[in-house]
Amino acid sequence: MFRLREPWRFTVAVPVAVPVWSVDPRTGKQREQVTVEATADHVDKAVRAAADAVPALAHRPARAALLRTAADLLTAERDRVVATADAETALGPARLGGELARTAYQLRAFADVVDEGAFLDVIIDHAHPSPATAPPANAARTPPAPDALPAPRPDLRRYKVPLGVVAVYAASNFPLAFSVPGGDTASALAAGCPVVVKAHPGHPATSELCAAILRRAAAETGLPEDTVGVLHGFQAGVDLIEHPLVSAAGFTGSIPGGRALYDAAAARPRPIPFHGELGSLNPVLVTAAAAAERAEAIGGGLAASFTLGVGQFCTKPGLVLIPAGSDGDRLVTALTRAAAEAPPGVLLDDRMRRHFLAGVRDRARLPDVTVPVEPGADGEAAVRPGFLTVPALRLTQDGPHELLTQECFGPVTVIARYDNDAEADAVLARLPGNLTATVHLSTAEAAGEQGTAAELIAGLTRLAGRVLVNGWPTGVAVAPAQHHGGPYPATTSQSTSVGGTAVERWLRPVAYQDTPPALLPPELRDGNPLGLPRRVDGQRYP
Amino acid sequence: MFRLREPWRFTVAVPVAVPVWSVDPRTGKQREQVTVEATADHVDKAVRAAADAVPALAHRPARAALLRTAADLLTAERDRVVATADAETALGPARLGGELARTAYQLRAFADVVDEGAFLDVIIDHAHPSPATAPPANAARTPPAPDALPAPRPDLRRYKVPLGVVAVYAASNFPLAFSVPGGDTASALAAGCPVVVKAHPGHPATSELCAAILRRAAAETGLPEDTVGVLHGFQAGVDLIEHPLVSAAGFTGSIPGGRALYDAAAARPRPIPFHGELGSLNPVLVTAAAAAERAEAIGGGLAASFTLGVGQFCTKPGLVLIPAGSDGDRLVTALTRAAAEAPPGVLLDDRMRRHFLAGVRDRARLPDVTVPVEPGADGEAAVRPGFLTVPALRLTQDGPHELLTQECFGPVTVIARYDNDAEADAVLARLPGNLTATVHLSTAEAAGEQGTAAELIAGLTRLAGRVLVNGWPTGVAVAPAQHHGGPYPATTSQSTSVGGTAVERWLRPVAYQDTPPALLPPELRDGNPLGLPRRVDGQRYP
Repeated sequence: MFRLREPWRFTVAVPVAVPVWSVDPRTGKQREQVTVEATADHVDKAVRAAADAVPALAHRPARAALLRTAADLLTAERDRVVATADAETALGPARLGGELARTAYQLRAFADVVDEGAFLDVIIDHAHPSPATAPPANAARTPPAPDALPAPRPDLRRYKVPLGVVAVYAASNFPLAFSVPGGDTASALAAGCPVVVKAHPGHPATSELCAAILRRAAAETGLPEDTVGVLHGFQAGVDLIEHPLVSAAGFTGSIPGGRALYDAAAARPRPIPFHGELGSLNPVLVTAAAAAERAEAIGGGLAASFTLGVGQFCTKPGLVLIPAGSDGDRLVTALTRAAAEAPPGVLLDDRMRRHFLAGVRDRARLPDVTVPVEPGADGEAAVRPGFLTVPALRLTQDGPHELLTQECFGPVTVIARYDNDAEADAVLARLPGNLTATVHLSTAEAAGEQGTAAELIAGLTRLAGRVLVNGWPTGVAVAPAQHHGGPYPATTSQSTSVGGTAVERWLRPVAYQDTPPALLPPELRDGNPLGLPRRVDGQRYP
Repeated sequence: MFRLREPWRFTVAVPVAVPVWSVDPRTGKQREQVTVEATADHVDKAVRAAADAVPALAHRPARAALLRTAADLLTAERDRVVATADAETALGPARLGGELARTAYQLRAFADVVDEGAFLDVIIDHAHPSPATAPPANAARTPPAPDALPAPRPDLRRYKVPLGVVAVYAASNFPLAFSVPGGDTASALAAGCPVVVKAHPGHPATSELCAAILRRAAAETGLPEDTVGVLHGFQAGVDLIEHPLVSAAGFTGSIPGGRALYDAAAARPRPIPFHGELGSLNPVLVTAAAAAERAEAIGGGLAASFTLGVGQFCTKPGLVLIPAGSDGDRLVTALTRAAAEAPPGVLLDDRMRRHFLAGVRDRARLPDVTVPVEPGADGEAAVRPGFLTVPALRLTQDGPHELLTQECFGPVTVIARYDNDAEADAVLARLPGNLTATVHLSTAEAAGEQGTAAELIAGLTRLAGRVLVNGWPTGVAVAPAQHHGGPYPATTSQSTSVGGTAVERWLRPVAYQDTPPALLPPELRDGNPLGLPRRVDGQRYP
């Protein structure tokens, strides 16, 4: 049978340069063409160039210097960076100035982590020639039975080494602190891993500017500029996660986007760790006693928290359990007053604005939902904050009200009024994993003198990575004890993306057995020439 | 249109009890029916019962007592356990007695880990009311610029909590140390996680016996018996990884089996960490200078290592790079003599025997491969050890010889003769990740006085999780500094399955913000009431 050759199917692969535009969310107008989207070839070149920087980054003092120089340069360029970010995100100079200071502080904090070297997790066990003469170094409190002693043991020395090139997927809502110069980048560089950032399309000019600053910091520190690379475009993000030389990834963004990349990372011939922060409802429980004690203060605090940054925080309180009855009514009255006075704001881009308005509309029309302060459009570009209420009982069963337990990005929160503790518990028991969970307690409850606050704390611990008492989750302090992560879908791993322990994501241990002193890394030599915190024969030093 | 109702498609689901047999590999005969395969309902019941044990296991002293009691009971039942395991695995009473002692030692070592509590990774940052009055606790070496100080910081206290029920997939080749009472189980219990073990079909009677011992230890410690459960059957393993209440998994086995379970763990609605140890070639490089110095000793040592336990170790040296020329010839001569004298042995089961014989046959018929000592069948049940040689050049390019860089379970190894260092490097550069990588150096090289040994060590570090000098990889000491893991496919994560840090796999951090003292876990209270190692305001104690 005759068959057409279909010549029109033959296409010549001429790469078309897709422009990347910076857009002003206040007007919806294109500001400038920043660059073009990265092709597969661009991605490959960026990753290979980053991989070539691995040996230079092995020098820890150079990493610390890079991080501090980056902080200095970022601070020196403050006005330009803040103006550029504000033009692309409408977050405002005050907020962005604070975010820049936080980002610089974070870079310096990771330099301190590098200097201290505790993250290397050095463990040294000297050889036991014979179990009869040398008991196990990590001495048991009950001595082991003689026949349970191990075989003679070799000399073993273990520390952690960098994984290799890290892919960072930047966030929309923090153009600095969770983007090109943010925590994923800073912690990966601290670990000794070069970084290739997939820029967020919401702030390409800021991303290019920050990448230039980081690359200049590398050059000034004597490191390759390609220690940090930046790419634009959706397909570039997919190509990046699949690149054979990429060894790990960090991500901050939505559940669908994060899950797709997580799945791609797991499906690789060589799977790689994917540390994604995807989404969180951040439930808050106000006890009856707390409402009786401080209804007005809690209502006002809640309004300030859920409207902060136009509600565009991953830690925005999205579901608040408030008791039914007069104390709860007082709280809602205070909330209503404060929310109605909260100013309108511009969301990060038009797509988010449409999602927000649609999300509010779909929730507001559910049965039994009321809208004391209606969130909605304000003029051509801005939105007004507001909140919904629903009887908590509606959230204790399967059905359309489950929508109210899903994150809605933007300045809106859901108040669920509960009749008794069992009802509140039933709502909490149905929630997926969260970044944070908060409880507001009365003075007597907080002192452990009344009620079941300890059980409540234990329950919230199952639900989230950070548990707060009498506070609001929207601030995420950069501190050694911080944990910004939580059960899925809050994060796809057990790690944090904020705080000193974020460095642990980009390392793997290696043990050296019977390796002669001259060939050991200095971190593992006897006498501790680098002055590191170490565990030697079961004892921790210092 | 008329449509047939197809009544023959309606089947009544009568569960058929599939028997689980214990088989003697020395005869291939069934010894006894141990139990039946677990149905989906059995799996669900076992996981739910284990989940109910979570609150009781939160008590750390009970966990330590459980682990020590389990070690005591296992030791008390030594004769019965060893006889049962020997009848199912043919590993011999001497080896199994040693494995039992190792397993008991490991249980006690994890009890020590629980007592010490360093794995809780406690970090406490007291509040900074104002950045002007309080500098960051983790003081920077260069003081940060004043405008880079963080916002006032809340009180943050972080430690690690258990993940929940852990699924353990037991190994064929270590019926004790990597099976029901093995390292995955011991470390999960140490972390506070109940365990459901998918028993290996090669030793069901040993698995049942050990599970009974662990359950008795739980009961004697006042913990629920269902702190440890055991299941049999292939489908039970699949059902287990997909169970919503399973929170993490440990696995020791083959690349195809481990990858299938890894993929299933990643594809769950809520993905869970999967710590799999899958396969490893464990390359060994003998330098020209080392061959010149100790050809005979190295040849003899290699024969002892690759034939140990009938070659059924995940750390068996499977590829050995030996220089061409007379020194290398002497080494091969010594190896030939020792390998020819090595006794035949019985593999774990008939399937492994067939795989081994087929694997040897496929490798031996590749071009340029010689067989100085032929590995093969010895009578009805046993196999003889042996080895192959090939010019290393054959392994530096794509083609059928890539088969020689894949693990072949059983007493066989591949000797690749190299003409120069670049050729050896080219072979190593093509290898996937490994558990171990070994180099044999001359005295001068080991002292760093000659050659490029430091570069070699750095290269092997990229390749494996444990690097050995002048030793053999087949012993894996249970020690704090041990790392038994490596780049994929050696393991599917960055963790170890042997040594104290194995406990870290089953934990997640939680931070408490501004939580009143009365409601804090005692681990996080001021004054350190439990005497734990902690990091407080940037300082490590003790």
